[in-house]
Order: sequence, then structure tokens, then C-alpha cells
Amino acid sequence: MKKYNVGILGATGAVGQEMMKILAERNFPIEELRLLASKNSAGRVIEGHTVVEACAENFKGLDIVLGAAENDIAERFAGDIKAAGAVFVDNSSAFRLDPDVPLVVPEINPEDVKKHKGIIANPNCTTIISCTAVNALNSISPIESMVVSSYQAVSGAGANGPKELFAEVEALSKGESYEPRVFQHQIAYNVIPQIGGEQFAGYTSEEMKLQNEGRKIMHLPELKVSCTCVRVPVVRSHSVSICLKTKEKISVAKAKEVIAAASGCKLVDDLANQSYPMPLDTSNQDLVFVGRIRDDLTDERGLNVWCCGDQVRKGAALNAIQIAELLI
Amino acid sequence: MKKYNVGILGATGAVGQEMMKILAERNFPIEELRLLASKNSAGRVIEGHTVVEACAENFKGLDIVLGAAENDIAERFAGDIKAAGAVFVDNSSAFRLDPDVPLVVPEINPEDVKKHKGIIANPNCTTIISCTAVNALNSISPIESMVVSSYQAVSGAGANGPKELFAEVEALSKGESYEPRVFQHQIAYNVIPQIGGEQFAGYTSEEMKLQNEGRKIMHLPELKVSCTCVRVPVVRSHSVSICLKTKEKISVAKAKEVIAAASGCKLVDDLANQSYPMPLDTSNQDLVFVGRIRDDLTDERGLNVWCCGDQVRKGAALNAIQIAELLI
Repeated sequence: MKKYNVGILGATGAVGQEMMKILAERNFPIEELRLLASKNSAGRVIEGHTVVEACAENFKGLDIVLGAAENDIAERFAGDIKAAGAVFVDNSSAFRLDPDVPLVVPEINPEDVKKHKGIIANPNCTTIISCTAVNALNSISPIESMVVSSYQAVSGAGANGPKELFAEVEALSKGESYEPRVFQHQIAYNVIPQIGGEQFAGYTSEEMKLQNEGRKIMHLPELKVSCTCVRVPVVRSHSVSICLKTKEKISVAKAKEVIAAASGCKLVDDLANQSYPMPLDTSNQDLVFVGRIRDDLTDERGLNVWCCGDQVRKGAALNAIQIAELLI
Repeated sequence: MKKYNVGILGATGAVGQEMMKILAERNFPIEELRLLASKNSAGRVIEGHTVVEACAENFKGLDIVLGAAENDIAERFAGDIKAAGAVFVDNSSAFRLDPDVPLVVPEINPEDVKKHKGIIANPNCTTIISCTAVNALNSISPIESMVVSSYQAVSGAGANGPKELFAEVEALSKGESYEPRVFQHQIAYNVIPQIGGEQFAGYTSEEMKLQNEGRKIMHLPELKVSCTCVRVPVVRSHSVSICLKTKEKISVAKAKEVIAAASGCKLVDDLANQSYPMPLDTSNQDLVFVGRIRDDLTDERGLNVWCCGDQVRKGAALNAIQIAELLI
């Protein structure tokens, strides 16, 4: 079996660390694992691997680079990675809407991987979770629109998100104050209806991703999405409340049947027994849990769906490694 | 100035206690304040008032009884309260949909108070907050439908809700376990997409209230609402994400203008300066904060609105006392 030289760019962050864990769990055929990060982190040893500085020289010899860094880092090194002959599977949003870059959720559009020209983009976490949940419905009848409200975990902001939440909880329990640094406001015992800066007509950058990326992933150029993204004091796993409209009506029974059979999904839908997707249950899980499926009471062609998924795993690291698995 | 004999039924609970506070704050013209509760609580002294047992005899002489008890208690004593000649302003859901009982939000349908036959119902907390937020829009052009996702505070389950949240947070910080009693599952660092039992087609009782009560309050018998109600680890104040469709399009600018001028509302809508309604800011406030107003991207006649309100005050105790003020 052929083995590959795999790099992780941004290896010391939350997503980079999760990528290391998942590569091992899934027995990805690795010849060499190279951890790349900023100059400051170079020399650190993580599980026997010495972190090297991200620079043109250090991408040489790699087959695949998994990107777990911010947009500016991804943009800075994409050329060097391609020049080194490696394929860049990037988790940042820098290249997601570039027409030359496939944007892939392996359960939905695996065939798009083949069109790559050196870069494949990993979608936004809430987008991956939502699209994985509803794609089985889209396969029966095209989704025309979605009205979405999210409940996003603090770890979506990186490893410092949970630290800030716990620091605030502790400070409040002692009657002390705590100055937020990661989030715009106190997140403990609060919800914040802002993720990202303003991008379009009062919508934040995070709120526009589900429409813009969802169109590309599900091959629905006309898809309309109205999204409200909200940070909640949950450590891990995003939840999403979706009211979607399909071209032809899909019954609740049919929706449950196809979601139960869909790759990447687990149907958890038994209200009478208090069973539905919750972030506590989906954390550290690969599957997106889907439930609370009901007819939309405002539109004959509508359905309400509630889903939860681990945004560090399926929403980021796992999805990127699934893309890498399609490449090899 | 005429003064009134006012009773509080269920005076020892969270809403009953808030009613006492608000009666004092608003200088309600009280001759006698009588606290009524279960036999177990009788004899307790709260701020100089001795709690008496709720029974037919003890409603005699009262002009107004504010109900802060559950449905069974409200149903048991409604006849006794009417027989005593008092008007029953009830916060339970027992009589809300009874055609002989007005269901009132004073900023929206104060005229309905006049139609009472001894009972006036106080709407559900999420319904009061949502209707107060959007009623100014409904005044310009009738609301046809709303797709709603809520973020409801633990104190909506009574005084034991916050106790359970804090007990779980403390247990988790020590690595101990805690068996939930108030909520169906752990609420600390989690969200629970169930409030109430199943009522209609997979919707919970809480989820059906906004449609059923909203129709009656806003005089919109055809109003359609698809609601997903979610408990979040917030102590106080419910938040609601609303995507609504009006008969004629209302522009974002016009919506902001009328909401800013609406009774009971405060417009908080400046994303660039990280200013929007949040539960931390609305707790212990009388006004419903409204913001994040945007054109719905899925429908030409749609608007997205985000609102927060203190469900113990405006969502319950304050609204009931505002109704009592209309009576006198």
C-alpha cells in the first residue's frame, strides 16, 4: 500500500491537533507526518514529531498539506505548497468561493475533488453540518431556500474559546469580573448574535457562508439562505435550526427514512422519549445527528429540521481528512 | 385616589415574587396585598405580609387576583375568585385560548381587556416578547407568517431552573456528576431542543403557543408560525430569532423606524459597533430589545428580526400588572 507524506499547516491549533488525532484513528497511510506552524512554535515536540516553521522550503517532498490555519496564512503559503507539488486541502475560507477550487463535503460532492488544480477547500463548519443534515432531502427534491438559526459552540473560535468561557464562569462564581478577549461580550450565561464582521446587507460573514458555500457544495446555484448565527455557551458541537423549502413536498415520514439512510447522518428523532440531537451527545462524534423533523406550518413545501454536529471534527478536521482520503 | 385589594396566587414562586417587586416599583394603588399559596407555605412572612392558604374563603374582599401558579391551581380557584367578585389576571395557560377570556399584551391589544368576564389571561413568555417585538411591523402591514427559533433561559422553568444550572456547573467543575431533575437533560454547556411535551404534529406545547396565542393577541386569525423552542444555559431573558413575512414588503429602514418608536420596544441595532439585543443586557429590564433587522434573503416580503426580553418581567409579572393597571 502506498504511503504519503502529509503536512499539517497550523498543527498547534485546535483543528490541527484534531487532525493529528483523526489521521491516527483512521489509519491514514502516512510515510512522514510533518507539523508546520509559526516560527514561535518551531522546535516543539508533539507526540514525537518536531514542529517545523511554515516556509517554502519546508513544504518540499510533501504529497498532501492539510491546512488548519487562518486565511492570511493559507493565502501566504498556497503558492509554495503547489510549487512543492503537494495538494493543499485548506480549512480556511480564503479559497472556498474560487471557481478553480473544489469545495467538498465527501458525503455530498466527492466527484468535485477530481477537478482540483492543487487546492481543495474545506467548507465552513456550520455549512458542513447543515448540508450533511439536509443533503438527503436535496437528493429527492432540490432545496429552494432555508431559514436558519444557529447555536454555535465556543470552540468554533479556537482553543481560546472554551478557556474564556470557563474563566468567565469561574470569575462570576467568585463575584469577580472578567474582560472578554475572544468574544465581543461575556459568553457565560449569555448568547451573542454575532459571529464574524458585517459582510452583506446587515448579515455577518458567518451568516453568508451557508448560502454561498451551500450553493457550491450542493450544486444549487439559486439556493437562498437567510441565516442568523449565534454563539452560545456550549463547549463543543454546533446546533442548527433549519426551516427548508423543497421544490416538491417531502413528507416527514420520507424525510426521516432518507436521513436515517444518509451517509454521515444519524437520525435521532423521538420526542416522546426525549430523544433529539444535542451538542453534549455529538461531541467527539463523526456523524451529524438530525431530528425534530416536522412539517413547516408556514409553507406547504417546508420542513423543519434540527441538527447537531461536532464542528471541530466533521465541521473541520474530519471533513478535511475525508477529502484527503478521496485523493489517495 | 382609589386603592385596591390585590391578591397574588402562587406568591412564593419566581413570578409571584417578581409581581410583588413590580407592584412596589410601579406604585400600584394597593389597599391590601394578600399573598396566597399552598397550605405548606401558609404562615410564611414575606416583606411583612403573612402568606395565607389559597382557598375560597381567602379570596373574599379582593378586587384583583394576579395568578402566578400552574394550570391546575388556576383552574381549581378561578371559580372561587370570580365568586368573590375579583378579576383574575392569570399567568397560566389554562384559559388563554378560551373565547370568553381576553389574552392581552397591553402595548398591543389593550382594548380587549374590556371584554373580560372575570378572567383575563397573560400570554406565554416567548409569545409576549416576540409579539411585542414585531407588533409595530404588523401595524404597517399584516404579518402572514413567522419562522421562529428561540433561545430560552433556565429561569423560564421557575426558580429551580437556575439552581439546577449552577449545581451542574459546579459539579462538572469538580468532575462530579449531577442528575437533572428540572430539565430533561444536562443544560450546563448544552442546549435542549424541547420545552413542553408533544402537542401537535411533532411540535411541543411551547412551540404551538406563538401561533395560537399570537393569532389572538394580534387579531390575526390566519397567522402561521413554525416554531422551534430551545432551552439554553442562560439564567434570565429569552432570545428569539424571527423570520417574518408581511402582506406588503416593509423596508429595513422603515422597520427600524417603527420599532424604535414602538411602545415596549428598544431598538438596539448597530452591528458595526457590536450592539444588538443580548440576554445579559435585557435581564431586569421592562423593554423588549430588538435588533439585527435584515431583509430576508429567501423571500421578497420577509424580514429577519432578533429580540430579547426578560421573560420573568415583561414575559410574565410585568405584563400581568400592566393588565391590572388597565383594569383600574
